[in-house]
Amino acid sequence: MLTLASDFGTPYPAAMKGVILRRSDARLVDVAHDFPRQDVRAAAFWLREVLPEFPPAVHLVVVDPGVGTDRDALVVRAGDHALVGPDNGVLRPAARRLAGDDPVDPFVVRVDDPASTTFHGRDVFAPAAADVHEAGVDGLGALDRLSPAPVDDLVDLRLPEADLTDARATGEVLAVDDFGNVVTNVPGEFLDGRETVAVNGERVPVGETFASVAPGERLVTVGSHGYVECDVNRGRGDDAFGLETSDHVTLER
Amino acid sequence: MLTLASDFGTPYPAAMKGVILRRSDARLVDVAHDFPRQDVRAAAFWLREVLPEFPPAVHLVVVDPGVGTDRDALVVRAGDHALVGPDNGVLRPAARRLAGDDPVDPFVVRVDDPASTTFHGRDVFAPAAADVHEAGVDGLGALDRLSPAPVDDLVDLRLPEADLTDARATGEVLAVDDFGNVVTNVPGEFLDGRETVAVNGERVPVGETFASVAPGERLVTVGSHGYVECDVNRGRGDDAFGLETSDHVTLER
Amino acid sequence: MLTLASDFGTPYPAAMKGVILRRSDARLVDVAHDFPRQDVRAAAFWLREVLPEFPPAVHLVVVDPGVGTDRDALVVRAGDHALVGPDNGVLRPAARRLAGDDPVDPFVVRVDDPASTTFHGRDVFAPAAADVHEAGVDGLGALDRLSPAPVDDLVDLRLPEADLTDARATGEVLAVDDFGNVVTNVPGEFLDGRETVAVNGERVPVGETFASVAPGERLVTVGSHGYVECDVNRGRGDDAFGLETSDHVTLER
Repeated sequence: MLTLASDFGTPYPAAMKGVILRRSDARLVDVAHDFPRQDVRAAAFWLREVLPEFPPAVHLVVVDPGVGTDRDALVVRAGDHALVGPDNGVLRPAARRLAGDDPVDPFVVRVDDPASTTFHGRDVFAPAAADVHEAGVDGLGALDRLSPAPVDDLVDLRLPEADLTDARATGEVLAVDDFGNVVTNVPGEFLDGRETVAVNGERVPVGETFASVAPGERLVTVGSHGYVECDVNRGRGDDAFGLETSDHVTLER
Repeated sequence: MLTLASDFGTPYPAAMKGVILRRSDARLVDVAHDFPRQDVRAAAFWLREVLPEFPPAVHLVVVDPGVGTDRDALVVRAGDHALVGPDNGVLRPAARRLAGDDPVDPFVVRVDDPASTTFHGRDVFAPAAADVHEAGVDGLGALDRLSPAPVDDLVDLRLPEADLTDARATGEVLAVDDFGNVVTNVPGEFLDGRETVAVNGERVPVGETFASVAPGERLVTVGSHGYVECDVNRGRGDDAFGLETSDHVTLER
Repeated sequence: MLTLASDFGTPYPAAMKGVILRRSDARLVDVAHDFPRQDVRAAAFWLREVLPEFPPAVHLVVVDPGVGTDRDALVVRAGDHALVGPDNGVLRPAARRLAGDDPVDPFVVRVDDPASTTFHGRDVFAPAAADVHEAGVDGLGALDRLSPAPVDDLVDLRLPEADLTDARATGEVLAVDDFGNVVTNVPGEFLDGRETVAVNGERVPVGETFASVAPGERLVTVGSHGYVECDVNRGRGDDAFGLETSDHVTLER
């Protein structure tokens, strides 16, 4: 199984699929190709949340504002999974989550004369992902084009954690989903036992479900990833709260 | 075969696919994940039109404004197909069409401690759909988590029918497609033998094809579902006619 | 393998997939369903660039402003591939590229009583593509519904070529991708050895990678298809250059 994720829109992902299918009979599953453009952190967040739902697989990830520069191309073994993508941090949070208590094993991909400097998804990452799929997660060491790399040499990316006191959580927006739900980095437990909280100074009801407030009304709830979300029942939380990715959020009990 | 339909955008459908693929080797086919948000009736219309094109399959449908409330999760056997989704009516028009002259057989899914109150697609419906796929449409009775339910206990949803006289059809807009074509609930036969009709008072030519009028011009035609559509050749009918879903439409010969 | 491309959005492509899967067990791969609406030339460009990445396959293409008129439905054998779609030129550039030095072999599809005049994707092209897939590229002659057609009877479409002198290239915009990158028809070699060029009179740096200029800055580069692109690092070239599909572009050294 080989999943694909990018910020490419269409039809570039199809070019990657063609390249893969010339080398491999892998089952292909799209994760998303409309990640916020060149937003490495947002992609890293979504991948960390979604990829662990999959059975063991190779995950091809191309969110790559540095395409064509000398940033490395990586394959990272994490538990039973392998991730393939640029060395800009986008793979790291998902790799840590997939590896659990085990270390992650990174490899650098040797790049021979790519056909382009602007489409490494097609020319570098897709062939590497197909080869990794064919070799299997346990066969990475046998792939000529891969050289083991010390994990400390890789670009790291850690999603920010909220500061928590009894009375207050100071965090930020990790992502806004397609419904307009605003995903913060405040752990859901902060809402335990509360009927309202103040979001950047304005009191909002805490609800277990969207339907706990009237359509069009704001609420704060715990999202499927376990974080506090700022939402609107049948509406867009980002508009109603005036929040977007990376904005600071303060919650007060 | 297992089809997926939702109003989720991305990447939530990928989380559902991961969950399914941990339990089943089913072939997955996307129907749409950009159904109008939380618009149960529009989704019900499209599913009724599209799902009967498929060979026998399990159809996972998550358009679910009541997620996390006490609305039931359903599996509905309809002919050789099974539908899985919330008890809000969204499955009913497709189930009736798929069952033909046979009755539909509904089951309620027992929900044990879902991980979230906001993402039953991942935590309730996807595992149920995978299990239904593995059991097969004829094996639903053997699934522990399913209890037969009287069809009359289910939320029903019937798409409205137009009022027809010889001279006039009074109906409404069922859906607007991605081209901007306005799909009414007036049967195509209403146009038989007519060269023009009045749409909400304005005369418009009847055409068999978009190309029967000049680019940019309005026409009324019979869409692929057999209903009267208000369209523009190489343009958007919704803009040109000022019509959107649920608006009333009167056609006069 | 059977690829699908259209300007349909959703959920119409799913109806085509259902029809195909009732006739064939083919692996389905989406190329794109959001091609610019009814823009035959833009689709022809993207298909020429993307389809050659695939191993031998049947390629179903429905960008068809003339649906329901008497334009023919075609199957075109090109090398190890077959293309299925309307006779409006959209298949031609990809067919020529796939056939290489070999001739292309066109067939006209006999259309018996389609169910609709507005959805030949479902009623004509999808069943034809499934049948072609089952017959195989070498078995087209045995399909009853196909009649060989002289290639000169087909609508041709050739993507325009730029006029080149030593000092100046006069071309046009072939396509704008989802990043907003403006793809011209000027061969990338025109940039060889240049540090800047003038685009419609304004000097812009030539870069090998997006990152060769600061975020938000314009550059001219060679895209993955080998043509000159007018881009912005982490921004939209179409907005910054004021260019859209079919606009004229003059590059001066």
